[in-house]
Amino acid sequence: MEKRRIFKTLLSIEDAKNKLLQYYTPKPLDFEYTDLEFVYGRVLAEDIFSPIDVPNFDRASMDGFAVRAEDTFGADEDKPIELNIIGKIDTGEKPIISVNKGEAVEIGTGAAMPKGADAVIMVEYTERFGSKVFVFKSVTPNENVITAGSDIMIGELVLRKGQLITSKEIGVLAALGLRKVKVFKKPRVAILSTGNELTPPGNPLEYGKIYDINTYSIAGAVIECGCEPIIMGVVKDDWKDMENKLKEAFKIGDCVITSGSTSAGVGDLIYKVIDSLGEPGIIVHGLAVKPGKPTIIGMINGKLFFGLPGYPTSAMIIFRLIVQPILTKLSGLSEGFTEANLEAKVAQKIFSTKGRREYLPVHIVMDEKGEYNAYPILTGSGAITTFALADGFIEIPEEIAIIDENEKVTVKLITPKLRLADLVIIGSHCVGVDILVNCLREIQSSFTAKIINVGSLGGLHAIKRGEADLSGIHLIDESSGEYNLPFLKTPDLLGKAVLIKGYKREQGLITAPGNPKKITSISDLIRDDVTFINRNLGSGTRILIDRYLKIYAEEQGISFNELKSKISGYNTIAKSHSAVAASIAYGKADVGVGIRAVAEYYKLHFIPLANEQYDFVTLKNKLQKKSVKSFIDMLSSNFFKEELNKRAPGLITDSETGSIIDINM
Amino acid sequence: MEKRRIFKTLLSIEDAKNKLLQYYTPKPLDFEYTDLEFVYGRVLAEDIFSPIDVPNFDRASMDGFAVRAEDTFGADEDKPIELNIIGKIDTGEKPIISVNKGEAVEIGTGAAMPKGADAVIMVEYTERFGSKVFVFKSVTPNENVITAGSDIMIGELVLRKGQLITSKEIGVLAALGLRKVKVFKKPRVAILSTGNELTPPGNPLEYGKIYDINTYSIAGAVIECGCEPIIMGVVKDDWKDMENKLKEAFKIGDCVITSGSTSAGVGDLIYKVIDSLGEPGIIVHGLAVKPGKPTIIGMINGKLFFGLPGYPTSAMIIFRLIVQPILTKLSGLSEGFTEANLEAKVAQKIFSTKGRREYLPVHIVMDEKGEYNAYPILTGSGAITTFALADGFIEIPEEIAIIDENEKVTVKLITPKLRLADLVIIGSHCVGVDILVNCLREIQSSFTAKIINVGSLGGLHAIKRGEADLSGIHLIDESSGEYNLPFLKTPDLLGKAVLIKGYKREQGLITAPGNPKKITSISDLIRDDVTFINRNLGSGTRILIDRYLKIYAEEQGISFNELKSKISGYNTIAKSHSAVAASIAYGKADVGVGIRAVAEYYKLHFIPLANEQYDFVTLKNKLQKKSVKSFIDMLSSNFFKEELNKRAPGLITDSETGSIIDINM
Repeated sequence: MEKRRIFKTLLSIEDAKNKLLQYYTPKPLDFEYTDLEFVYGRVLAEDIFSPIDVPNFDRASMDGFAVRAEDTFGADEDKPIELNIIGKIDTGEKPIISVNKGEAVEIGTGAAMPKGADAVIMVEYTERFGSKVFVFKSVTPNENVITAGSDIMIGELVLRKGQLITSKEIGVLAALGLRKVKVFKKPRVAILSTGNELTPPGNPLEYGKIYDINTYSIAGAVIECGCEPIIMGVVKDDWKDMENKLKEAFKIGDCVITSGSTSAGVGDLIYKVIDSLGEPGIIVHGLAVKPGKPTIIGMINGKLFFGLPGYPTSAMIIFRLIVQPILTKLSGLSEGFTEANLEAKVAQKIFSTKGRREYLPVHIVMDEKGEYNAYPILTGSGAITTFALADGFIEIPEEIAIIDENEKVTVKLITPKLRLADLVIIGSHCVGVDILVNCLREIQSSFTAKIINVGSLGGLHAIKRGEADLSGIHLIDESSGEYNLPFLKTPDLLGKAVLIKGYKREQGLITAPGNPKKITSISDLIRDDVTFINRNLGSGTRILIDRYLKIYAEEQGISFNELKSKISGYNTIAKSHSAVAASIAYGKADVGVGIRAVAEYYKLHFIPLANEQYDFVTLKNKLQKKSVKSFIDMLSSNFFKEELNKRAPGLITDSETGSIIDINM
Repeated sequence: MEKRRIFKTLLSIEDAKNKLLQYYTPKPLDFEYTDLEFVYGRVLAEDIFSPIDVPNFDRASMDGFAVRAEDTFGADEDKPIELNIIGKIDTGEKPIISVNKGEAVEIGTGAAMPKGADAVIMVEYTERFGSKVFVFKSVTPNENVITAGSDIMIGELVLRKGQLITSKEIGVLAALGLRKVKVFKKPRVAILSTGNELTPPGNPLEYGKIYDINTYSIAGAVIECGCEPIIMGVVKDDWKDMENKLKEAFKIGDCVITSGSTSAGVGDLIYKVIDSLGEPGIIVHGLAVKPGKPTIIGMINGKLFFGLPGYPTSAMIIFRLIVQPILTKLSGLSEGFTEANLEAKVAQKIFSTKGRREYLPVHIVMDEKGEYNAYPILTGSGAITTFALADGFIEIPEEIAIIDENEKVTVKLITPKLRLADLVIIGSHCVGVDILVNCLREIQSSFTAKIINVGSLGGLHAIKRGEADLSGIHLIDESSGEYNLPFLKTPDLLGKAVLIKGYKREQGLITAPGNPKKITSISDLIRDDVTFINRNLGSGTRILIDRYLKIYAEEQGISFNELKSKISGYNTIAKSHSAVAASIAYGKADVGVGIRAVAEYYKLHFIPLANEQYDFVTLKNKLQKKSVKSFIDMLSSNFFKEELNKRAPGLITDSETGSIIDINM
């Protein structure tokens, strides 16, 4: 067996950062001048002292007449003072007349005050007769005049180096008349992915390969740090290819980031290549954290190198912990701008390994009290869904083995701004839910929903924990044959949760178009020439499938286990109706169980088995939540019923749809 | 006098929005396909169903040997099971071998499982001898295998229409192999400023003109709404010019925004031009809000028109209230993404006008309890500094005349993310403070300070209210001649505030280089050929100036008022030392009073008058705040002293610098 590289000294995040700082002080690299039009989002590279007074002349702040204030003293409604109008000054015009005793000049808002005048009498307090004006009110010196430099004075320090330029700062720069703005150059970050199994998106996927994810998500994260990503693509695990690509990357990038091939496993090529490219080479090699152990940090002739783990979630966590703080310093952005933390309660007990720091992805739900709850996502750092669901992650220190439910933790957000969904729906998948959410967005375009498909039982669990606002379920009680309501009669839910009546769904066997294998009933599943696609445990459809199979096993006089072993594909699991339909559409299976709406969407054959009841569950105290109310209102509306009819054949509403059943009553 | 347009029906913001909705339903205009590399920050224009399984083959999740799980049953440390190695599968390779009973295949993490094998035994639990491997642990079926579709299944709905694409979503799109992404087209927003007084930044400023601010700040705000700004520049108040520019704007823009010329004042050209361009023309004309009354909304042949007020602050407030909600709908972004509100306590009593809704710019300071405090900015909506200082604004409803101190209000933030400064310094201006902040940023690049120059007395007031973390002051007690400490002996501050010793500053008369007017002392200020530049009331320097002038008046046997009237420029006010120096450097004045450091920076002549003591004040309960501690540490450090010596001649530290004086003691 080939020699394996061992991580000898795993460093903590802090030690790794400190070690890097011995070699490198991250700070903005260079500056450039950018036109005011394109300066949005950049970072100022110099202190801005005002080159002018703003305004740079005394300016009328009202429409009226420019006068000498003392000429108006004593004027009132009964005793107006008469002045001679000697001219007019329009806004933007350079005044050439002077105002002497007893004179007035007509003036517009923003116009320059004429010499001699020191106040403006508003037009409302005057009456004009030809070249005379009667003034019905006295004014004091400087009244209705914005004096030169009163806003910003020449020489004033108005904006500081390091300031992020937003619409506000652009306004200030414009006010000073600055056209070219000295900003920090965006650092160029070259990004490569390594691994023979990687295929760039957009190309056909060969067997055994996966798409390159990290290049693109890292590029996005690099943009968030105020840097410019340069996508260099996929590098093979081959000395020559890696050496060439890395050489090029160090040539064009101020910093180089790779992902993958850093584990102490099959290949340790990248270490050797980096070390061969320059000094000092690799300086950090392996971190005492999970995930993220296979992380390397290096420097080649003054340029930074980060080798991130290959798993997408691990790569993003390490990026956030180590790379982002450095890139934001290179770009001149303060880290505070790209970083955001929030305090949350842990929603369920978490177990960790002592002696290694762990980072656990979580998603965030706000509860009724306005507090954030963090739900650990346990699908693993290899899964792209982990990454897609996560709002952030929490740090579990080395010495901690257990975090109790409700303990307070700090969540590091993945993107600076948390966007909480208006409505969190966790439960069984149904196209009806998608249609309902689309209806809500039709009338309120900003409406957002987070829909997590975990099956009916998982949904009820999420309701108990307060995680879900709503859960769609379709669970049949084996003893009574009744749908859903019996499942609310548990100690956790009784009296706390209510059922919101949904709609009937036609469930059936789904086969390829034209039903080429002539499948007619559940008994065909044991045929040798038939491959089945099953549903996940905890889903209502799985309960339905197993119920039918148990009945059939009894009829055949064999055990349920024996029957299961005869069904090819019984252990192949799809997580949603659509996934079942897609499996059949793409020829991966011959038959599955699902709803008519999805079968028709995929233009597949449908053999009805049963009408089941699909309902929603919520906690009583969520009934007052605005988005839950909107959801129930929409469920009861004719608009939704019509949309459902049109777009989801086999989903059937009735007069009970939208009504609330409180089993306490 | 020319006919003036009167705002007849001023609408509320809500009525204005509703009126607009009768004519127009804001929604995304069109879509386009964008390459994955450039899709960051865009908005998905379709639901994304996965076209593939992720992974699309069974995948080893560990380095080791692919085996049939049942072959390993019973294996342990003492009783290893021997298997024949029949080959090797590298990551990315399509397996061609099958694993039969008693066989194993060497496999790398991420590689495709060979036919026949259903588990991977980790390399750590094996020992290899030539073509044999000993297995020291049993594995169960699917152990260390990521099954096909277990992450994302073909047909699954993974991302929804309307989703903002960040690094996370890019990762998901890449995982599915999607290269071209259907996103909403960015709406094009044409922006013009109107007014004869406007000069585009970058051009010399003629007398009576000001720079065009709104075009550029509106362009920035348009970017924040996910739209593309098209800068059309300045339009004169001239029918032909306005008609041509607006016609062009409606041709190239999906929406047109102007600012200025909308007041019912001098010109009402823009109304007539808009009405002449198409149907229905202007539909909202004047709002019952302050500021923002002169706002117009129109539609020309299906395209939106917004005419914003000319004052920068008014324009931005109306943009935020009316334009932003619509532009975010056009771009497909949800409003929630660009909008952010926060709850804050009002820091001082606010008076408003009943019967008109008011919007008041505020800046936000976080107090010790972590609560936000909103400080009204009262410089007026004409001032660009109002705009620059404001973090957001509060709404004061029509029926409210007074908001009491500590009342809770909702602050609408100007940019989605509030960046609170680490340290708020309000008080007298000193270059030493700028140098100290730069020192802090030298060692902690993300350090941010908000420095507001309001003079020494204003600083003490801000300390009282808890608004400032620190205040720099230099106030001489006329009776004792002692600096600063006496001013902490007020009921508000005694026992609550402490003095932090700063440094001495050499104050003196500043004149043009070479002192062409031969000014030698304060007595020269009354010379006819000398123009003075004074400092603002409340500044320590102003107190010093007036102290010297009073002494001189006494010597001359005239009243202080009489002396003042003899000084040309006594009423001309600069707000900072730099502003005084700049006035002299640019020839606006002959002499002013300021510190040596600034005089030397501007290469001006300096005549010493006095050494004054510049100290800092903070509240005792702020001494524990991290940024205050860092500030005091830096003030005491040799690093700062050296920087000060080098960069600010005339600022002199001593052994007391950085020591804390608690006058309770």
